[in-house]
Amino acid sequence: MKQKEMLFKNIYKRELNEVDKKIALIFKKMKPRSLYDPSEFIMKSGGKRLRPMLVLFSAWAAGGKFAAVMNAAIAVELIHNFTLVHDDIMDNAAKRRNRLTVHNKYDLNTAILTGDNLIPIAYDFLLKDIKNGSLKIVSDFTKAIRIVCEGQSLDEDFEIRNEVSIREYKEMISKKTAALLEMSCSIGAQLVADDKRVVRKLENYGRSLGMAFQLQDDLLDLTANETKFGKVPGGDLIEGKKTFLLLNALEIAGGKDLKEIKKLIKNRGINPEEVGKFREMFIRLGVVENTRKQIKLYTNKAIKNLSGMPNEEAANLLTWLAHELTAREN
Amino acid sequence: MKQKEMLFKNIYKRELNEVDKKIALIFKKMKPRSLYDPSEFIMKSGGKRLRPMLVLFSAWAAGGKFAAVMNAAIAVELIHNFTLVHDDIMDNAAKRRNRLTVHNKYDLNTAILTGDNLIPIAYDFLLKDIKNGSLKIVSDFTKAIRIVCEGQSLDEDFEIRNEVSIREYKEMISKKTAALLEMSCSIGAQLVADDKRVVRKLENYGRSLGMAFQLQDDLLDLTANETKFGKVPGGDLIEGKKTFLLLNALEIAGGKDLKEIKKLIKNRGINPEEVGKFREMFIRLGVVENTRKQIKLYTNKAIKNLSGMPNEEAANLLTWLAHELTAREN
Repeated sequence: MKQKEMLFKNIYKRELNEVDKKIALIFKKMKPRSLYDPSEFIMKSGGKRLRPMLVLFSAWAAGGKFAAVMNAAIAVELIHNFTLVHDDIMDNAAKRRNRLTVHNKYDLNTAILTGDNLIPIAYDFLLKDIKNGSLKIVSDFTKAIRIVCEGQSLDEDFEIRNEVSIREYKEMISKKTAALLEMSCSIGAQLVADDKRVVRKLENYGRSLGMAFQLQDDLLDLTANETKFGKVPGGDLIEGKKTFLLLNALEIAGGKDLKEIKKLIKNRGINPEEVGKFREMFIRLGVVENTRKQIKLYTNKAIKNLSGMPNEEAANLLTWLAHELTAREN
Repeated sequence: MKQKEMLFKNIYKRELNEVDKKIALIFKKMKPRSLYDPSEFIMKSGGKRLRPMLVLFSAWAAGGKFAAVMNAAIAVELIHNFTLVHDDIMDNAAKRRNRLTVHNKYDLNTAILTGDNLIPIAYDFLLKDIKNGSLKIVSDFTKAIRIVCEGQSLDEDFEIRNEVSIREYKEMISKKTAALLEMSCSIGAQLVADDKRVVRKLENYGRSLGMAFQLQDDLLDLTANETKFGKVPGGDLIEGKKTFLLLNALEIAGGKDLKEIKKLIKNRGINPEEVGKFREMFIRLGVVENTRKQIKLYTNKAIKNLSGMPNEEAANLLTWLAHELTAREN
């Protein structure tokens, strides 16, 4: 298995390199530069490129080739970056992945317009890979963008609401995060295969993986190492974000703990020096353990869909990837 | 001809009513309301619905029926409104058509997200009317959205630049305004007809009409009656916007006039009480007359494309419409 892991890691690295190379070329000759310099800046910010990788590997699992879906892979990364640029404005974020956010490096208007314009560019890339005239693929791509916007809207709503249930929270992340991962797997498969069962299974894989991924993100906010994660630890607590951890703590806590949590919600956040206290509380209450269990649950649910794929090697890579994401520290 | 005018006016009114009725239903059952109430608010703000009307009448001129392109008509209106919501943020506009702008009535985040989300909803509507599996229509729709963003970016650039040529200005409005009118005519035609010559002629009509329309808009800023136009007269001068009128005045003026214009550009605008002085100057210098001539030129250029259309009655309506827009006061 160690050997397999090395192989998968190498395939991932190789394709990540391909995606990065293609991304570096997108805006090179485009004008005006006032629009395309910031586009280049945000798109070159690197990272693991999870969504395009899911397009590539889903196509492979469905029996296709990477080359057939490379443009579609870029398309979902463009959509993802559109959401990042606009979310950062809405969250008033100064930095992302240790770099300035677009509205901070440039200005608000540039960031709005840069985000907007990534959408049509994404459609252009998607259209390049549709060889069978399938409008359904365009429709699925479109639906995911709308759902992501709805998810972001729910997330904004939750910030000013005092009560949010775990069920509501899960609906929100399924829209804000999981829908795009689901769509990535879906279009990767649809672009190369007609088998609806295969497409549906990969969609289910992507959706459950997305849930695990977002819960892991919530968890990392509290447990990650600053420089690796590129964010201030406990940032969600400081901003009073209603993450799975906070909502779970609210269910479990009593007495003095409950009082502290309610105070955090009422004050819409805490001081940075209080993060340690909450981390200790969340570990003591079992919130960290519960979150880990949820992540494992969704990861297993994702992996179950990978049986009977046309390409077993690719299915194994997707299994490995699901475990990798669960174990990640950034 | 008076009788024909009445007929065309009635057809326009009837179809405008159809479009408005359909628009009123779009968001009725959608959730979350934090996203769809503002969407409804902006889309119900009325107006002449020029872009959807161009989709309908172009389809008619190309030999098709209104019903075949009604969803596509809604799609371009959704795209238009996406640009309005985001442009109003960028321009810091408090009002539009005598109503509050979205970011003013709600808040910045809501306005960003509302604008964003109108894009996928627009694609959804467009896709409903594509019966022939034509990805080219999706591609043309996409291209127009990108070009509009590029035009807006140029417009933003011009605000901080001291020198802008008339040629550059025309390139900017051809992207910011004319591209969407061109696309409206193009997809209206393509959805019902295969004849490339007909499609190209209607595209040319839309593009030239768009140029005339934007120049008329520039002119109305100075000459229109406040309540009808729904904006403060001379608003462009007050904000120091580099419109066709200002750039033309800069070419023509000498002595004291030139000094005043250069001061306006340097100060990025004037006081409201100075509008009258500039209006007098622009009339005296022949700038108003020059703008009228340009509008006429583009209007005639637009109309020339309407000969030999499959449906002559529709072509006559489009001719009437071009003249109507030139004569409009709001």
